[in-house]
Amino acid sequence: MNGRLWHFVGGSAGQFQVTSVTAISGETLPAAPRLFVGQEAPPPSSEAFRLLGVVSNERYATRSEKGELVARQEAMGRAEAREGAMIAIKKNDQWWAMPQDERRAIFEERSRHVQIGMDALPQVARRLHHCRDLESDAPFDFLTWFDFKASDRNIFDDLVACLRDTEEWKYVDREVDVRVVRDGG
Amino acid sequence: MNGRLWHFVGGSAGQFQVTSVTAISGETLPAAPRLFVGQEAPPPSSEAFRLLGVVSNERYATRSEKGELVARQEAMGRAEAREGAMIAIKKNDQWWAMPQDERRAIFEERSRHVQIGMDALPQVARRLHHCRDLESDAPFDFLTWFDFKASDRNIFDDLVACLRDTEEWKYVDREVDVRVVRDGG
Repeated sequence: MNGRLWHFVGGSAGQFQVTSVTAISGETLPAAPRLFVGQEAPPPSSEAFRLLGVVSNERYATRSEKGELVARQEAMGRAEAREGAMIAIKKNDQWWAMPQDERRAIFEERSRHVQIGMDALPQVARRLHHCRDLESDAPFDFLTWFDFKASDRNIFDDLVACLRDTEEWKYVDREVDVRVVRDGG
Repeated sequence: MNGRLWHFVGGSAGQFQVTSVTAISGETLPAAPRLFVGQEAPPPSSEAFRLLGVVSNERYATRSEKGELVARQEAMGRAEAREGAMIAIKKNDQWWAMPQDERRAIFEERSRHVQIGMDALPQVARRLHHCRDLESDAPFDFLTWFDFKASDRNIFDDLVACLRDTEEWKYVDREVDVRVVRDGG
């Protein structure tokens, strides 16, 4: 197994209670009461969906952008960050056929993706997983996993609303927004 | 299965006769008499190695570089291109920790990777496969598959010699060069 692989399994087991599954564009995911997120094999469960993604190298961020992100971001899993979201995204063929410089220009110079994410730091923590280059046929290109305090949910909602309004998002064919709450508290 | 997935299997079966397996840096691959290259499942064979890779989007090439490559390159599998090579590469952690702009600067502005490849067009045809973001634990980050006429072998040898002399190659931890000849002719 790739040491950077993560499982996201919607089903009857998992650390998180699913509070909503919303198709923003394209087909939704099946509803499930729980979400498992982990690097080990998920617990036995009646599964509604099973998604895989790999943490990988930066595709667009420059040294100065990465430096600012690292300086401002918090690690995931803070005890008080009991709410979370898995946003699953698939971009269209036109996006993937573009060379690197054109994707970068849309991603940051015209859509300000890094800067929009920066505005939500440090309240919203984030980990990006890539699924496009797995050997299996993956229904999404990216899974992004977020956590935040319930009182910061509006910051997260603003973040995703801003991104959905960008030129970059015109290349998004399918997006499903899964909201969760962690047990305990 | 990912529709962009390719298998490279060294063993007792396959379309290609293996003429050499050379470790350029790091550990070699086991010797095998034949190499199978294909998108379907490989034929039953006593296997020495089995590698997987996925054709993916450009990571560094700009619109103008891609345009020039596409204008000059030939498709793989020309009847007269009976010699081939699979070059398997693993880069080190320092490479992968660099942000996009620094990797691009080393790759092209300082190592002229695209330009060196361009010099071998149209004689050498090429297809790049990514292995770093597979779900399985892959021993290499990239598999590049080349074909050329026997009379153009010196152009291919110059190509790989030039690349191995670049700053980019200081980040290559492991490289294995597998040369093959296609049956018939």
